[in-house]
Amino acid sequence: MSFQKLDALGHRLEAFSHALSILGVDEAVSMAAGGGEARAESMSLLAGMQHREASAPEIGDWIDAAEQEDLSDDQKAALRELKRQYLNLTCLPVEFVEKQMRTRMRSEQLWRDLRPRNDWKAFEPALDGVIQMVREEAAMRAEVLKLDPYDAMLEQYDPGTRAADIAPVFDDLKQFLVDFVPRALSVQEENLAKRPKKPLSGSYSIEKQRELGLTLMQAVGFDLTHGSLSVSHHPFCGGVPTDVRITTRYKTSEFLSSLMGVLHETGHALYEQNLPKEWAHWPLGKARGMAAHESQSLFVEKQIGRNPAFWQWALPIVETHLGEDWSIDDILPHVHHVERGLIRVDADEVTYPLHIILRFELEQDLIAGRLETKDIPEAWDARMQAYLGLSTIDSPGDGPMQDVHWPASLIGYFPSYSLGAMMAAQQWATIVDQMPDIGTDLSKGNFERVNDWRRQNIWSQGSRWSTPELMQRATGSALDASHFKRHLEARYGG
Amino acid sequence: MSFQKLDALGHRLEAFSHALSILGVDEAVSMAAGGGEARAESMSLLAGMQHREASAPEIGDWIDAAEQEDLSDDQKAALRELKRQYLNLTCLPVEFVEKQMRTRMRSEQLWRDLRPRNDWKAFEPALDGVIQMVREEAAMRAEVLKLDPYDAMLEQYDPGTRAADIAPVFDDLKQFLVDFVPRALSVQEENLAKRPKKPLSGSYSIEKQRELGLTLMQAVGFDLTHGSLSVSHHPFCGGVPTDVRITTRYKTSEFLSSLMGVLHETGHALYEQNLPKEWAHWPLGKARGMAAHESQSLFVEKQIGRNPAFWQWALPIVETHLGEDWSIDDILPHVHHVERGLIRVDADEVTYPLHIILRFELEQDLIAGRLETKDIPEAWDARMQAYLGLSTIDSPGDGPMQDVHWPASLIGYFPSYSLGAMMAAQQWATIVDQMPDIGTDLSKGNFERVNDWRRQNIWSQGSRWSTPELMQRATGSALDASHFKRHLEARYGG
Repeated sequence: MSFQKLDALGHRLEAFSHALSILGVDEAVSMAAGGGEARAESMSLLAGMQHREASAPEIGDWIDAAEQEDLSDDQKAALRELKRQYLNLTCLPVEFVEKQMRTRMRSEQLWRDLRPRNDWKAFEPALDGVIQMVREEAAMRAEVLKLDPYDAMLEQYDPGTRAADIAPVFDDLKQFLVDFVPRALSVQEENLAKRPKKPLSGSYSIEKQRELGLTLMQAVGFDLTHGSLSVSHHPFCGGVPTDVRITTRYKTSEFLSSLMGVLHETGHALYEQNLPKEWAHWPLGKARGMAAHESQSLFVEKQIGRNPAFWQWALPIVETHLGEDWSIDDILPHVHHVERGLIRVDADEVTYPLHIILRFELEQDLIAGRLETKDIPEAWDARMQAYLGLSTIDSPGDGPMQDVHWPASLIGYFPSYSLGAMMAAQQWATIVDQMPDIGTDLSKGNFERVNDWRRQNIWSQGSRWSTPELMQRATGSALDASHFKRHLEARYGG
Repeated sequence: MSFQKLDALGHRLEAFSHALSILGVDEAVSMAAGGGEARAESMSLLAGMQHREASAPEIGDWIDAAEQEDLSDDQKAALRELKRQYLNLTCLPVEFVEKQMRTRMRSEQLWRDLRPRNDWKAFEPALDGVIQMVREEAAMRAEVLKLDPYDAMLEQYDPGTRAADIAPVFDDLKQFLVDFVPRALSVQEENLAKRPKKPLSGSYSIEKQRELGLTLMQAVGFDLTHGSLSVSHHPFCGGVPTDVRITTRYKTSEFLSSLMGVLHETGHALYEQNLPKEWAHWPLGKARGMAAHESQSLFVEKQIGRNPAFWQWALPIVETHLGEDWSIDDILPHVHHVERGLIRVDADEVTYPLHIILRFELEQDLIAGRLETKDIPEAWDARMQAYLGLSTIDSPGDGPMQDVHWPASLIGYFPSYSLGAMMAAQQWATIVDQMPDIGTDLSKGNFERVNDWRRQNIWSQGSRWSTPELMQRATGSALDASHFKRHLEARYGG
C-alpha cells in the first residue's frame, strides 16, 4: 500500500530531522569551538541525504497511488500536506539548491564580518548575488505553484498567505501606527512625569534567574518531562516535540529581558509539545508555519506575559526568587516600555510592526525588480524616516545589514513576525469574547482555560489547515488588524 | 577509482557516526526524561541506515577493486582495516541489527528503572531477551569470522584478542590477587595503625571542583578547544575527536572520586584528540579498540594520577582550588585505598580485576549456553564469595544488575578493562625503562615526554595494528601480567 510506504518514509525523514535538530541545539549550547568544521560537514551531509530521500521521484508516484487508496479523513489530510511539501521541495533543481547554498553561506559569513564594521559597500555584491538567486528561485517556485513570485516565497513559511491579502492589513496597521507611536510615547512621558521610573537594576544570580524562569515556564504550561531550559548566545526554541529545548541568556544586572525571552520561547515550546503525536512523522503533525508559530510565542510573551493581570500573580513569585519588593506600578513601566529604535529585535510591540512593514514592502520591490540591491540603503532610510522618524543612512549596520534573513536567502519570512502578533491579538480577543472573566485566571496564575482553547484550536490542528483557514476556524473571522490595534490602544493609548 | 568511492563513503558514514555520537552524549547529559522514546526510534533508524550503507554489497566489490589499485602504504592499511570492519559489519542481517537495537534500548531503559529498586525478577526477562539475541549474534559472527563464538564477540572490541590467549593471563592474575588482596589489606591496616587516616570530607562546591578538574585535565594534555567537561549520571568519554565530551558527577562532601574520574576520562579523551586526522573518516583513523582505549584512561588515572610523584605536583593545585592544607601523607592513603566491595566501578585497582575476571568467566558460560540468565545471581554470588569473600545474593542491584553492559548487549567488552590496566602498566614500565627519570617529570607537572611517547606509540597509530601487535610494537613484548603484578606489589605490597 502506497500510504504505508509514505508512512515508513516519514519515519526515516523524521530520524534525520530529529538528528539535525538536536545537532543544531548542541552546536549552539554545548559544542567546543574547534568542533565546528566537522559538525558543519556532518550536518550538511545528513541534510543532503535527507533531501535526496525526501525528493526522490518515486515519492510522486506513491502520492498519486495513495490518492486512489481508501483513506480516512486524517490520512487524506496527511497526504494533502505531504504533497504540498513534496511540490515545494522538488520545484528547484538540485544544482540550483547547491549553488544557492554556497552563495548563501558565503554571504552569511561575510555578513558576520561586515555588519560590525558597518561596511555596506563590501557587503553589497554578496547580498546582490543572493537577491539575484532569490529572484530566480521565486520565479521557479511561482511557475510550479502557479502563484505570484513573492507569494511563492511566502508559501514556504505560511501556506495560503498571499501578499494581496496581507498588504491591506499591513497598510491599515501602518496608517494606525504612524499616528499611534507618537501618542503612545507622549502617554508614556506623561505617566513618567507623574511617577518616575524605579530602576530594575540589581544583582541577580544566574541560578536564581534560572529558577524563576523554570517556575514561570512550568506555570504557563511547559512540560519539563518533555523539554528543558539552557543557555545560548542567541535565545531559541529547538529540539523535537518530545524534548523541546528552549534557551535564554542572562545578565546579572537585569532580569526582565531574559524572563520575557523565556516566556516567548515557552510560547513556541507549548505549540511543539502539544502537536498531534500520531502524525509526528508527517508534515500534518508539524506546526503550521512561521506566522502561526510566532502567534504562539507572542501570545505567551505579549498577550499573557505583558498583561497587568499576569503581573499581579507573577510579581510575588519574582520577589520570592529575586528578593526584591516591587509593586505592580513599579514593574509595568518596564514591561510596557515604548521606544523608537533602529533595531528590529530590540523593538517593543508598538514599534515592531513598522520594522516589519518596511521589510515587507522592500522585499516585494526586490523580488519584482522594482528595487535593486544598491538602492536598498536609500529606500530603507526613506521608510525609517517616514515610519519612525529615524535615519540609518550613515549606519547601514543598524539599517539594512542588521538581520541575517536576507543574506541567508530568507525572503518572505519577515511578515510572519507581525502576522503572528496580529494573530495572537485576535486569538486573545476571541478567548476574551468566549470567556469574559479570563483576566481573573491570569491574575491567579491559572492558564488552563487559555491553554485548553489553544490546544483545541491551534496546537492539536498541526498542519491540517492553511494559515488563513486556521485563523478563520479558530477566531471565526479572517485576520484583520483591528484586534491588534485595540490591544495597543488599551495597553498604550492612555 | 574504487578507493575514492570508499573515501566518499567514509565521509557519509562518518556523518552518521558523528550524529549518533552526539545524540548519545545529548541523551546522557541534556535530554528530558520524556524524550527517550523518540530518541530511541531516531537513533535506531539512523543506525539502521548507516548499517545499510556501510554493509552495501557493492562495497565488497569496491574493496576488491581497490586492492588492485596502486595505493600508498597508508591507503593499503586503510583498506585492510575497512575490509575487517566490513566483514564484521556484514555478518549480521539488517533486520537483526534493528531488532537488537530496539531490544537493547528497551532493556537499558528498564535497567535504569529497576536497578535502584533491586528488582531482578522484573528485569530478568528483558535481560534474557538480550542474552538470547547475543547468542544468536555470536553464532553468526563466529561462522563468518571463523572464530569461536566468544572470540567473535571479543573481536569487535579488541581485534586479534582471543580468549585462549588472555585466559592464562587472567588466571595468572587471579591466582596472584586471591593472595595479594588480603596482603594489601593487612599492609594498609598496619599503615593506618601507625598513622590514622585524615578524613578528606569537607564541603566543596561543584563550581570549585569543576575548575580544579578543568585545570588538571588541561595540564595533562586535554585540549579545551576540542572538547569539554560536563555532568552526567554515569561518567563517560563521548563525542567526536574534534569535540570530545567527557563527563563526571560531583558530591559536595568529597572531591577525590570525581577528580580521579575526570583524569580517567581525560585519558580516553587524549587518545581521541590525538588520532591521525587525515584518516578520521576511515576505520584506520579510529582508536584501536576498547582495551587499547582503557589502557589510555588507566594510564592517566592509575599510572600517572595515583602516582605519589604526581601528587607532589597536584596537591598545591588542589589546595589552591579547594583551600585545604593536605600533606602527601594525608592524601596517599585515600588515593591508594584498598577495599573489598560489591561494585566494580567503585573498586580500587587491586580488587578491580577480580570483578572483571568474574564477568569474563560468566560471559563465556552465557555465550556457550553453560549458564542461563535465571541462574546468573547464584553464579555471580558463588564467584564473589570465592574471589572477594562477599555475597550479593540478596542485593542483585549491587550484583549482576550493577552494570549497563549486559542490558546493552555488550558481551565481550568487560575483559577490555583489565586488559587495559595490564597494558597501561606494561606501557609505563616501558617508559620508565627508556626514561628512568620520568618520575621527576610527573612531580613537576610535566607530561610532555610521557605524552610524546604515547602519541608516537599509541595515539598516532590509530587502528593500524591488531591489539596484540600494538602492544608488541609499543613495549617490545606480548601482554603479560607481570608488569601489572609488579606495579601492585610496589604500590600496595608494603
